[in-house]
Amino acid sequence: ADVKKIAIIAGDGIGPEVVAEAEKVLKRTEELFGYQFETEHALFGGIAIDEKGTPLPQETLEVCQSADAVLLGAVGGPKWDNNSKELRPETGLLGIRKALGLFSNIRPAFIFDCLKEASTLKPEVLEGTDLIVVRELTGGIYFGEKFRRETANGQEAVDTCAYNVTEIERIARQAFEIAQTRRKKLASVDKANVLETSRLWRETVNRIAVDYPDVELEHVLVDNCAMQLLRRPSSFDVIVTENMFGDILSDEAAMLTGSIGMLASASLGEGSFGLYEPVHGSAPDIAGLGISNPIATILSVALMFRLTFGYHEAADSIERAVKEVLDAGHRTGDIAVDKSQAIGTLAMGQLIVDAM
Amino acid sequence: ADVKKIAIIAGDGIGPEVVAEAEKVLKRTEELFGYQFETEHALFGGIAIDEKGTPLPQETLEVCQSADAVLLGAVGGPKWDNNSKELRPETGLLGIRKALGLFSNIRPAFIFDCLKEASTLKPEVLEGTDLIVVRELTGGIYFGEKFRRETANGQEAVDTCAYNVTEIERIARQAFEIAQTRRKKLASVDKANVLETSRLWRETVNRIAVDYPDVELEHVLVDNCAMQLLRRPSSFDVIVTENMFGDILSDEAAMLTGSIGMLASASLGEGSFGLYEPVHGSAPDIAGLGISNPIATILSVALMFRLTFGYHEAADSIERAVKEVLDAGHRTGDIAVDKSQAIGTLAMGQLIVDAM
Ligand SMILES: CC(C)[C@H](C(=O)O)[C@@H](O)C(=O)O
Ligand SMILES: CC(C)[C@H](C(=O)O)[C@@H](O)C(=O)O
Repeated sequence: ADVKKIAIIAGDGIGPEVVAEAEKVLKRTEELFGYQFETEHALFGGIAIDEKGTPLPQETLEVCQSADAVLLGAVGGPKWDNNSKELRPETGLLGIRKALGLFSNIRPAFIFDCLKEASTLKPEVLEGTDLIVVRELTGGIYFGEKFRRETANGQEAVDTCAYNVTEIERIARQAFEIAQTRRKKLASVDKANVLETSRLWRETVNRIAVDYPDVELEHVLVDNCAMQLLRRPSSFDVIVTENMFGDILSDEAAMLTGSIGMLASASLGEGSFGLYEPVHGSAPDIAGLGISNPIATILSVALMFRLTFGYHEAADSIERAVKEVLDAGHRTGDIAVDKSQAIGTLAMGQLIVDAM
Repeated sequence: ADVKKIAIIAGDGIGPEVVAEAEKVLKRTEELFGYQFETEHALFGGIAIDEKGTPLPQETLEVCQSADAVLLGAVGGPKWDNNSKELRPETGLLGIRKALGLFSNIRPAFIFDCLKEASTLKPEVLEGTDLIVVRELTGGIYFGEKFRRETANGQEAVDTCAYNVTEIERIARQAFEIAQTRRKKLASVDKANVLETSRLWRETVNRIAVDYPDVELEHVLVDNCAMQLLRRPSSFDVIVTENMFGDILSDEAAMLTGSIGMLASASLGEGSFGLYEPVHGSAPDIAGLGISNPIATILSVALMFRLTFGYHEAADSIERAVKEVLDAGHRTGDIAVDKSQAIGTLAMGQLIVDAM
């Protein structure tokens, strides 16, 4: 049989506990659908700094490179926040994205019916919101040259933001293709009235657009987009943007749905390989208490099944199970209205596995 | 008597009509309080491109430089959107900020009682929201070197983001000082886990902080801030951040109050000189129809009185008049629930002048 290799990076904080539940879902999928997964755990982030002296050990990279997909829990925490750059979890995150060629970060943001009330937005504004932010992930100011130098005005720090046509083209094509499978609307976000990289971005997106005549393209300035997400979230379908803008806007979009503890993300490269992780962070404050919400990580497995393996039936089964468990009223503490009725991480994982 | 010189830049779109109402408020202030203003109009933005071939004519700069303060309506519009860089209104905006040394943009965002319902946020979330975004305005990626070059991957565009210690110090001090006059809370926003400019920003803010022990300082990452503004807007007092982040976050903050048509802003330099303008844009779609809302521009005059002239009594009078007119139920179309009852620009201006 076709054995799929999955690298498992549990990471820090609540990472290990939410990933453990996702692994139960993998196991249950094998039983139900006859698929076979071979999982291999690897150290990454804060725990790798502690145990190996670097956030991204070479063997972790190799485990990922020899896998078909990666499942990541979460990384980081206050313990490593004041470390020097090379000893910070974030540096590992940027490193793994670059090393694996994951140039595209796909962040769906939508409303879970049962969580409508969790948003700070009015329900009537939120109604129908279902969007995907496609964020360029290996270019821009994140990866440009950085340095300090002395000037007459004291020390100066410099970051460089660069984009070439090839980088913009591939992410634009991917966003157009995703839009074609959805409501066929693409908003390309830039700051073309100020930035040269944005002007090249806009020119390139316009050039690519002729290959996707069925997709309606609009250009939105980043400041305006931050406003329109609040004003008319449901009018967006697919949003494509560069690395830094995507970081800000995808978090804003996730938060406005009120479902941030439930959202999955995929980071993709050229082929079918992908890294999947929940949108939420490592939540060090509740790590180890057994109360974290494993749903976003479990839904990351469903996203992996769809985008990397094409196991749509199994993905459906997971997503249906999550819906069923939520509809039955089960909640972890983060999404419970009545906190005294909240169930723990293990219980939530088990309920979903049983419902598959 | 002490005659204050005010440069008036009406600009494009609805700029001229809203500025005209603000000028009536200036006149009324002279009558009521005995102050004297000398106003001089100057061309700027799109209209300056059309009439003088440049968005920021030298004589406009001179009018501003010889004034005590500048009142700006709004600039830009689709007519000039596809012009080359030197012939775009935005280029004038960046130019005037730099030429006048306006390194700080102050954007208060708060709720007008009568407009609570206009926000897309739930009223209980919004309750008590009253914050100021202090945006660095003459540094960062807006003003860094920009260019294109050929690479193996096609054309590449480059923007440079630079900040020196002096630039960060002066904006940080100003933000701390503003916080001291308010709830004494300062959130400094950066992306210190990725950017070198942000690391220098954070170090510098921390160093300055010891001079303001009464102000509670927190550091917030920009992506997290975009979320927290949505989650807990009322918990923010003063937010200080660099140019690009400030552009995005100040617009998000303004929009979430639901009062974007009502908010004023100030751009300040070293002394008392300042440029004052409404937060909203030039709204070319409704320009000339006489239906635009002059309140943000009128409140910009009040802000000018406070920050540049120290005319607090006159500022109070304007702000009270605006409140009175709104409380009496008068609305322009943008803020009217029943659009058929909306009044025009002239009527709104006159009501406010009469109520002073
Ligand atoms: C931790 C940080 C470097 C990272 C980023 O900005 O890319 C995170 O915010 C994310 O969005 O995955
Ligand atoms: C028009 C543009 C250059 C400008 C900016 O980004 O500074 C505007 O968005 C603003 O915030 O004043």
